[in-house]
Amino acid sequence: MISRQQLIEQIKQKKSFLCVGLDTDIEKIPEFLKEYADPVFEFNKRIIDATRDLCVSYKPNAAFYESRGVKGLQSLIDTWKYLPADCLNIIDAKRGDIGNTSDMYAKAFLDEKAAGMSFDAITVSPYMGHDTVTSYLAYPGKWVILLALTSSAGSKDFQYLTTDHGFLYEAVIQKANTWAGADRIMYVVGATKSTEFVNIRKLAPDNFLLVPGVGAQGGSLPDVCRYGMNKDCGLMINASRSIIYASNGRDFAEAARTEAQSMQKQMQAELEKAGVI
Amino acid sequence: MISRQQLIEQIKQKKSFLCVGLDTDIEKIPEFLKEYADPVFEFNKRIIDATRDLCVSYKPNAAFYESRGVKGLQSLIDTWKYLPADCLNIIDAKRGDIGNTSDMYAKAFLDEKAAGMSFDAITVSPYMGHDTVTSYLAYPGKWVILLALTSSAGSKDFQYLTTDHGFLYEAVIQKANTWAGADRIMYVVGATKSTEFVNIRKLAPDNFLLVPGVGAQGGSLPDVCRYGMNKDCGLMINASRSIIYASNGRDFAEAARTEAQSMQKQMQAELEKAGVI
Repeated sequence: MISRQQLIEQIKQKKSFLCVGLDTDIEKIPEFLKEYADPVFEFNKRIIDATRDLCVSYKPNAAFYESRGVKGLQSLIDTWKYLPADCLNIIDAKRGDIGNTSDMYAKAFLDEKAAGMSFDAITVSPYMGHDTVTSYLAYPGKWVILLALTSSAGSKDFQYLTTDHGFLYEAVIQKANTWAGADRIMYVVGATKSTEFVNIRKLAPDNFLLVPGVGAQGGSLPDVCRYGMNKDCGLMINASRSIIYASNGRDFAEAARTEAQSMQKQMQAELEKAGVI
Repeated sequence: MISRQQLIEQIKQKKSFLCVGLDTDIEKIPEFLKEYADPVFEFNKRIIDATRDLCVSYKPNAAFYESRGVKGLQSLIDTWKYLPADCLNIIDAKRGDIGNTSDMYAKAFLDEKAAGMSFDAITVSPYMGHDTVTSYLAYPGKWVILLALTSSAGSKDFQYLTTDHGFLYEAVIQKANTWAGADRIMYVVGATKSTEFVNIRKLAPDNFLLVPGVGAQGGSLPDVCRYGMNKDCGLMINASRSIIYASNGRDFAEAARTEAQSMQKQMQAELEKAGVI
């Protein structure tokens, strides 16, 4: 379990606010790993070993594991067990359902006794409203990371609809702020919309923002920091493909480390510039 | 695989538009089933045997299986294998993510070779827009059942926000209608809002609507039919707890049948009243 204060301390100590996304696709990992009993876990283990001092969070994407059925779920469980306790461990599941069903998703991902895993945080979709979120908040100290403004083309379909409370993504943030504070809720905000961070910081000055879209999707780290960083940093930048698939040879873990190190250095410069460290 | 026309034929033949929700909670099933190797599958099997001539669809709720980890996923796979081919088999997963992740969720639930299951239809959350939906539509003949207006209290938080295109749930329907026709997309519309069906039928005259909230949540079947039925029926009414937990003794399957039969009789009367049969 990682509190807001512990996360901030990790960021200052590691001089990094990197989240490594474990979107591990068995078809994209190096061929030589296929000899192992569980190639996906073996890949994740080596990525974790190579990057744990450079990042403050890991985020396995549930879909990539579910796509392989029972074997994939076992890879996810084994990966969760291997995640370092000093990192914020996020399951990227984007679940969203009514209360009695959210209770079950909470068991699936936050309750080790029930399903073998107990992540620190889960990504959640807001469409069905507060029922969707309260089940997870009932677990003391666990985090909900709510979708606000996402980074893909489809984000324009609904998130930018104008409502009585501003854009839909702004209405989501305003409402969710009434459910819990910055010590329990973070928001997903895509890096491809860096000027929107100005708006978002007005609505959520203290919340951590989980930011996908730097790297493979083309978002700019300096722009995100310029508009989105607060006095505690307040950002976690996710990078998945750009790190984990930096090479697909036997050197994949070292290549991942080199890429993570390059991001960490940029992050350190941003933290210094903003006076966080 | 069940086409729109085949679904309509099933409805006319069985004189029913019932969907049985398999929200199977191991803590709520009869004690004597605990002796079996897989009590959840044993429960589902007997529920299916007792109701298959009375319903046109089954809908396992993924959360209830995921909450039990690997064992739960195996129960879901075995349940999928046992589902009757003449019924529309829906996985209630409410997934929603960007394209490359949705591709993985599609493998998880629609591609037997990848993950052991190939449902006819999957429920999807619209928040992230068209990326969320296209991955599933790429599987020929498979259905997307998109959340529009849900039945719990949280639906008021965002679905009723006024946008440039009406309420958010109306904007969702209008936009999704541009992605695929009534032969590939259905909408989830909660029974607790029966007068809203008038609005919804203006936007989606031909789409099937999957309707939760009759039964345990208090929605009225005659009201839903009055406002929501179209010339092909166009409705599937989901009932979960009211059927599967009708008794928690040794007679649970017969009790489930009695309850399903009572709903089927009411549905037959509605189909006759509307001239569908």
